[in-house]
Amino acid sequence: MTDPPVEGALVDLDGTVFRGDPLIEGADDAVATLRAAGVSVLFLSNKATRRRAAFAEKLRRLGIDVDDDGIVNSALIAASYLETHHPDDPVFVVGEPPLRDELRAHGLTLTDDPEEAAVVLASMDRQFDYGTLTKALHAVDEETVFLATNPDRTCPTEGGEIPDCAGVVGAIEGVTGTDLDRYLGKPAQTAVDAALSGLDLPASRCLMVGDRLETDVRMANRAGMTSVLVLTGVTDRETLARSSIQPDYVLESIADIGQVLRGE
Amino acid sequence: MTDPPVEGALVDLDGTVFRGDPLIEGADDAVATLRAAGVSVLFLSNKATRRRAAFAEKLRRLGIDVDDDGIVNSALIAASYLETHHPDDPVFVVGEPPLRDELRAHGLTLTDDPEEAAVVLASMDRQFDYGTLTKALHAVDEETVFLATNPDRTCPTEGGEIPDCAGVVGAIEGVTGTDLDRYLGKPAQTAVDAALSGLDLPASRCLMVGDRLETDVRMANRAGMTSVLVLTGVTDRETLARSSIQPDYVLESIADIGQVLRGE
Repeated sequence: MTDPPVEGALVDLDGTVFRGDPLIEGADDAVATLRAAGVSVLFLSNKATRRRAAFAEKLRRLGIDVDDDGIVNSALIAASYLETHHPDDPVFVVGEPPLRDELRAHGLTLTDDPEEAAVVLASMDRQFDYGTLTKALHAVDEETVFLATNPDRTCPTEGGEIPDCAGVVGAIEGVTGTDLDRYLGKPAQTAVDAALSGLDLPASRCLMVGDRLETDVRMANRAGMTSVLVLTGVTDRETLARSSIQPDYVLESIADIGQVLRGE
Repeated sequence: MTDPPVEGALVDLDGTVFRGDPLIEGADDAVATLRAAGVSVLFLSNKATRRRAAFAEKLRRLGIDVDDDGIVNSALIAASYLETHHPDDPVFVVGEPPLRDELRAHGLTLTDDPEEAAVVLASMDRQFDYGTLTKALHAVDEETVFLATNPDRTCPTEGGEIPDCAGVVGAIEGVTGTDLDRYLGKPAQTAVDAALSGLDLPASRCLMVGDRLETDVRMANRAGMTSVLVLTGVTDRETLARSSIQPDYVLESIADIGQVLRGE
């Protein structure tokens, strides 16, 4: 057993539990293994383009029992952050409908009028175009808070990588000459705070299991969690060898999570 | 008279000679004054979204006699640069039809297939969208040369500022994690080279007249031209006072160009 004992696990989704549609073999048993060892599991994703309920439904379909509250994504992290820090500020969103829904569910006010915007929130947007960029240009000024849901460059799909949030951020930074104030998803502390408040545990008692060095592993290492890299997603051993970000554990797959619990 | 005597003048267009559609009062007489003093005039614009012939036609309509060769824009600068450095490399263009036409007129090969691209050329594109960004993501790799026609953040229009080339560059940099190799328009040396080869004069004998500190004035100062800022465009005295980039002359308008010729 690890020391201190693990009581919580934050588990990334895409590339860790499933890849595109299908389950990564043994991921269902791995979650069962964690739970059988008394470890609370929370799924933590940077993806704001999907509703948490849709994630939960997909996991259940793949044989992993979870309710909506067992999912924390960057839409929820952004909504929680804005609820705390900018509860009354009109938010101009570049993003998809599930993000807007999550923000509205937290009582936030959205605006499509650049002049009204006090916060600009950038996110992955598959409808992103010149018209949106023009509005964002006019929404960002010296008074505006400029945030992003997540720092990911690309999002893996079965048809190849597609542009994620960093494209929107880069375009807005380019035309405004204004740097992003902060992003909110992994590896930011805001993501740690959102996830640990869900588990009600200190970071030192938690694992973070994920496939990305620059988000999952970096966040865990900074926060003082035990970092577990799985090789079923975007990172291979060659990338790992060249990186300055190194995990506490490397597993071929989350299916081997028992090794971590046994401290092997 | 200035010393050494002025023999050439590079004159910016938007904000210097016209603003949107109408002529800036006295700009026609100013060009006549330069020519009467034996100064060769070349118009130098970072705008790649308009054909040179269309610029020339507009100037003639506004009372300034010029033929197509009297116009150097960033599409021509890019075409000349690629013709010299990448004559046989397939170019993936993010930009508007006039840019593509200029490149083809120089015998360059364009491609819409990201896998085929050896050069990615970014420019202002009012049709820019997620599909284009996705293609650009796959066009840029470690082998690709990544260029941009111009570094402008925004383009002034009568309806307000709209996103220029820097939005496209920022988006591509964001999703690829790859920095632009170089931009080609003002204030780059490639723009100086293209303009001076048109005039066949050394930089020290030339004026650069324009409304932007970070492009027109910076380029002139670096190249050893006499820099002349006009206040009819994007720069006001307050911006000028705060800037580290300072011109040799400040004129309310190009209409006062006689002051520079007289060395006042």
